[in-house]
Amino acid sequence: MTTVPHRIKQGAESTHLLAALGGEERGALLLALADALDDPEIMQPVLAANAVDMDRGEAAMETGDLSEASLARLRLAPSKLASLSAGLRTLAAQPEIVNTRVTHRELAPGLILEQRRHPLGVIGVVFEARPDALPQIVGLALKSGNAIVLKGGREAARTNAAMTAVIHHVLRASKVPVAAVTLLEDRAEFRELLAQDAAVDLLVARGSGAFVRMVEGATKIPVLGHAEGMCHIYLHEDANPEMAAALVVDAKTTYPAACNAVETLLWHTSAPQAIDATLAALHAQGVKLRGCDATMARHPEVRAATDDDWGAEYSDLVLAVRAVEDLDAALTHIRTYGSGHTEAIVAESAAVAEQFIRQVDAACIFHNASTRFSDGLRFGLGGEVGISTGKLHARGPVGVEGLMTTRWLLRGSGDLSADFDTKTRAFTHRDIC
Amino acid sequence: MTTVPHRIKQGAESTHLLAALGGEERGALLLALADALDDPEIMQPVLAANAVDMDRGEAAMETGDLSEASLARLRLAPSKLASLSAGLRTLAAQPEIVNTRVTHRELAPGLILEQRRHPLGVIGVVFEARPDALPQIVGLALKSGNAIVLKGGREAARTNAAMTAVIHHVLRASKVPVAAVTLLEDRAEFRELLAQDAAVDLLVARGSGAFVRMVEGATKIPVLGHAEGMCHIYLHEDANPEMAAALVVDAKTTYPAACNAVETLLWHTSAPQAIDATLAALHAQGVKLRGCDATMARHPEVRAATDDDWGAEYSDLVLAVRAVEDLDAALTHIRTYGSGHTEAIVAESAAVAEQFIRQVDAACIFHNASTRFSDGLRFGLGGEVGISTGKLHARGPVGVEGLMTTRWLLRGSGDLSADFDTKTRAFTHRDIC
Repeated sequence: MTTVPHRIKQGAESTHLLAALGGEERGALLLALADALDDPEIMQPVLAANAVDMDRGEAAMETGDLSEASLARLRLAPSKLASLSAGLRTLAAQPEIVNTRVTHRELAPGLILEQRRHPLGVIGVVFEARPDALPQIVGLALKSGNAIVLKGGREAARTNAAMTAVIHHVLRASKVPVAAVTLLEDRAEFRELLAQDAAVDLLVARGSGAFVRMVEGATKIPVLGHAEGMCHIYLHEDANPEMAAALVVDAKTTYPAACNAVETLLWHTSAPQAIDATLAALHAQGVKLRGCDATMARHPEVRAATDDDWGAEYSDLVLAVRAVEDLDAALTHIRTYGSGHTEAIVAESAAVAEQFIRQVDAACIFHNASTRFSDGLRFGLGGEVGISTGKLHARGPVGVEGLMTTRWLLRGSGDLSADFDTKTRAFTHRDIC
Repeated sequence: MTTVPHRIKQGAESTHLLAALGGEERGALLLALADALDDPEIMQPVLAANAVDMDRGEAAMETGDLSEASLARLRLAPSKLASLSAGLRTLAAQPEIVNTRVTHRELAPGLILEQRRHPLGVIGVVFEARPDALPQIVGLALKSGNAIVLKGGREAARTNAAMTAVIHHVLRASKVPVAAVTLLEDRAEFRELLAQDAAVDLLVARGSGAFVRMVEGATKIPVLGHAEGMCHIYLHEDANPEMAAALVVDAKTTYPAACNAVETLLWHTSAPQAIDATLAALHAQGVKLRGCDATMARHPEVRAATDDDWGAEYSDLVLAVRAVEDLDAALTHIRTYGSGHTEAIVAESAAVAEQFIRQVDAACIFHNASTRFSDGLRFGLGGEVGISTGKLHARGPVGVEGLMTTRWLLRGSGDLSADFDTKTRAFTHRDIC
């Protein structure tokens, strides 16, 4: 095993080949990876490794060191493999993005400017103990022409190592060196990665807000943080009660640990039917409710919320509920407690919805749709390395496009800037269609 | 005068109005600003303030505290005002960018996703003592719907204050509060700005590499650094000697202090005519040359370069010159010493030029064109807040687009994620043209 800086250097040296792959070669590589995930014989050691990780995970759960939700994420069921291979096939079928044109402009006759998409280079991704994330991230990295350095949660260490061995096996049959995909073993190696700011172009950090802030504080590599999803749904006074109930149940219960699950429900005090229907449906699903005085006055079974409940990311079957006087009060609450992830309104009035959309500043703003749609696969991005709540570079679900930079290419025939300063020549700045 | 955090908070509160301006209102505001710059009566106090700054600047030059180039940058000649107002009129005429669509996709029938451009919010810009930068930056901020906090070089303090007064006067006649444009007075206020990471979305730092790194180390605000331009021109063996000479003279002498000026010339050892013609032309322009042994063997008048010359940003009429054996050696030199700003090749062979373009990773890569074209105005971006050598968010000249983020908007009619998990419904992911 060579040192981390050396492995990252080898990864950086492979970026040339990754960027230069043709669209067909890149597609073939992704399909070969999908074929491997579909092959029970090839997957056997991965599933065996996952069984060992699961055994240890169950023991950790019994001693209270691992939650049931974490254990569920740790399991690499054959159904997950099938969905991963389907994702890779979708990615393979999507148009090639490396070297595609963003801008094409004649600056002056014979002086042609292009802006083209280019891989960032080397990307680090640190992610939770969730082994299905690994092939998805590798697929996005290969599609975007980037070398990747991975560090997964330690509970999934054996599964990740076995999966990486499969990926390296697939790479060996291609033009791409195995150095393009590096798996770090432990925290010591991760700390070495954090020091490689000269060689690593972007670090995607997935985990809690505290974890992302820790990573940001410990490295000079730019960090794209996938962190808190403090999502709200606001029921306007004209909300359709049945729709409201179904949307909030979907947003809270289908995957409570997901960052796009709803955490606080706001309801207009003139929407009693909508809140009644919604709380009844949530209650039927076993969701625990923490409410303000006005909510409790109407629904005595709701427990009193404390100040800590507003802004709490429960990641569990718990929901905070607060009555608001009007749209403005809802917007103020969201501005105060939201994390800029996903905010939704349920309203029949399109004009009110547009007002909400105009005034909320978040990565994702939804009207009459579940917050759970905030997702790279669901948005049609071919997967995601994370969901960014920052405003720079990439915002919201980060797919292939978020892993790219651009280069400006200018082609002339001896063109001099002085000729334009002296007005011997003039810029046309004509976009070429 | 209120405190810096309070003024930034007021700026943040104005972002709503800035984002909501219609395209015509925004254009009218930029035109009003251009009219003010064209009005000698309105400009009189600005020019008077500049005369005082210039007096002090000249005194500083005499004591060796300010360079002649810096003094030239400090002068706000009426010709500069005319060019600034022309720039603002160009910006006003460009299509509205706020709220324009990046993506438009049907996720499933009736469930429509849009990605739209949105202002970042509050942008800080710290820039050198160059008062013409101020109205240009304000123009880009208004066009992109952002509030702006400015800190200019102290030598231009009086000019900047007078110019800001004019801008506030123009804003008072519009819907936009004057809080949208804040000028910081001194370093103490700048240090207060650095602490406002919760309120400021982006900090553009212009200046030396050391200054940019100091700013990056002193704030949690994301920094877009406009720093070193360590630009190379490589003369391939088939370079046209006349073209080579003209391009290198243009790239070195038209504005030696600019970041897009060439600093090192590489020449293929089989291109004797090209290097002879180029060095003769540079010599005639008074450019001092520092060369490698092979260069000195051919041109004994060239002084010997030391290791420090490779990678030196002279920002002056000095050029390092090095012979290379082939294209690969040129690429290796550029990879070692380049700053990722602008790299150019002079070659008759289009195939060789494409090989160069493919293998260089820099913001701007040029074939048979002067490095001096790396500029927001020349690229047709309507100006620039700086040139970014980083790969994230914006790369190369940063115009209006680099000051924007996006928001994902999803509109449905009660759509549930569970229906897609259970395959009751299927995603179509059809892009809407």
